[in-house]
Amino acid sequence: MASAAYDIAVIGAGPAGMAAALYARIKRLETVVISKDVGGQMLYGPAIGNYLGFEAIPSAELIMRMRTQMEAHGPTVVEGNAATKVERKGRGFIVSAGHDTYQVKAVIIATGKVPRRLGVPGERELVGKGVTYCTTCDGPLFKGKQVAVVGSGMSAIYAALHLLRIASHVFLLSDYALMGEPHLIGDLGKAANVTVIESAQVTSINGDGKVESVTIHYGDDTQEIKVDGVFVETGWKPVSDLIRGLKLNKDQEIVIDKSHMTSVPGVFAAGDVTMVAEKQILIAASEGARSAMQAFRWLLDNRRL
Amino acid sequence: MASAAYDIAVIGAGPAGMAAALYARIKRLETVVISKDVGGQMLYGPAIGNYLGFEAIPSAELIMRMRTQMEAHGPTVVEGNAATKVERKGRGFIVSAGHDTYQVKAVIIATGKVPRRLGVPGERELVGKGVTYCTTCDGPLFKGKQVAVVGSGMSAIYAALHLLRIASHVFLLSDYALMGEPHLIGDLGKAANVTVIESAQVTSINGDGKVESVTIHYGDDTQEIKVDGVFVETGWKPVSDLIRGLKLNKDQEIVIDKSHMTSVPGVFAAGDVTMVAEKQILIAASEGARSAMQAFRWLLDNRRL
Repeated sequence: MASAAYDIAVIGAGPAGMAAALYARIKRLETVVISKDVGGQMLYGPAIGNYLGFEAIPSAELIMRMRTQMEAHGPTVVEGNAATKVERKGRGFIVSAGHDTYQVKAVIIATGKVPRRLGVPGERELVGKGVTYCTTCDGPLFKGKQVAVVGSGMSAIYAALHLLRIASHVFLLSDYALMGEPHLIGDLGKAANVTVIESAQVTSINGDGKVESVTIHYGDDTQEIKVDGVFVETGWKPVSDLIRGLKLNKDQEIVIDKSHMTSVPGVFAAGDVTMVAEKQILIAASEGARSAMQAFRWLLDNRRL
Repeated sequence: MASAAYDIAVIGAGPAGMAAALYARIKRLETVVISKDVGGQMLYGPAIGNYLGFEAIPSAELIMRMRTQMEAHGPTVVEGNAATKVERKGRGFIVSAGHDTYQVKAVIIATGKVPRRLGVPGERELVGKGVTYCTTCDGPLFKGKQVAVVGSGMSAIYAALHLLRIASHVFLLSDYALMGEPHLIGDLGKAANVTVIESAQVTSINGDGKVESVTIHYGDDTQEIKVDGVFVETGWKPVSDLIRGLKLNKDQEIVIDKSHMTSVPGVFAAGDVTMVAEKQILIAASEGARSAMQAFRWLLDNRRL
């Protein structure tokens, strides 16, 4: 258990967090970056082609370049534990992560989004052993195998259209009717190796050390389907529950004002965790940079530096 | 005189314009980019260190990388003439540049800012022949020469502090009192090769094919100062006068709404030409990307595609 003091904590290290840390350091703020990993949602895809300046770049390389640049400006980067809590203390905040705490004058929440989990027995135990939340990343590992995709929206449909070219058979398990482009749903219907089961409720993922099957309810029926992989494509949710009193929108995204300030004075937010409409790396990075400049101004205006 | 039709014209090719064109093409819009040059204000500095992903990169290289990526997505890039006019025609617009016109359904103005000119006799004729608007770019060319800096703000002060290390003598000509950090103004006062003349009105720049002197009024006096270079550092102004009816703020920046739309429906704007608070390459690029996504949505919503 250790405690350290900084001007500002940046929570999360995706593009928004890294840009926030870079600009906080450009403004000479003592900065700690706290994140479970570095890269955020960029970790979920193999390559990036729409970040201006890089025609096509492996995600790992862009992450490394952003990280190297951020670190060259000298923030403290604490990797390995996600922040679990932010509490007000006096005129500042205490951020908890793992066994450590950080005392700061302002906070930038750049925690992004994480995949929604199904919350069924077996899911947690079998993550990385057949259960995955990233079809683009892990699809290629299931060549010639039977797999299930769980979800009912466009990301589930795209995942199935991707996997039918890799797997021997794809079961698309949708809890309601599929929702998406009719012609894409039509393409799935025409594929010989895809079975779409609508109104299917996944009740458990089964296997001893690796995925062996998935159990579903539909109607009054229960069925066990043999699969080697379960691709959970039920959407992404913002990590917006770190501090009490944050105003959220209906999608649980953090509401910010023009100054990137949340409803809690001194707590700023940037990137995909916020209500910003466009979820793009370039835009998240820009939002991160802005939030740091605004936080710097707030710290000055409120005589905290 | 030629005329061509596109879905959208992006006017300007700085970071905002290039990102707008990239994203317009990602959205499969037929896109024409019209700009006098490619790079915008990035052309005015030697290197860039705060664009996330590039720890330190020569400006020319970052411009080239952005350009290559944009062009790989297939917009038509018309370089050499700035757009001079945008007019409504029917449900769309006509953009004029040089002898050519472009018929488009929507416009993104990403014209950025240009240096303010003095507007005195001799200035226009001697641009590039001793008159310059970029101290960082052209300072090194005046080693051992006498030069004048014209301006009264921080950029003029920084320019003089830069040039006193290069030139034999620097005349800093300020129309009012110098405004800036007292310790920096103090440094100028201590320098043996700097003469600060306040309340000096530049009335002409003189020379036959190259700058030979500058004429100033101060009080009732007129004086001719022999110089080889005139560094105009009187600030930057937005290029916001392409179309009638655009709402501007007091700094002549284009007012945009959350959708990046200007007061003229179908005309969007992004980057430093707009009222966006932070003038940064990363932010301008993000704004450009957003404006294209918003324009795409507007074209769909209004059944123009």
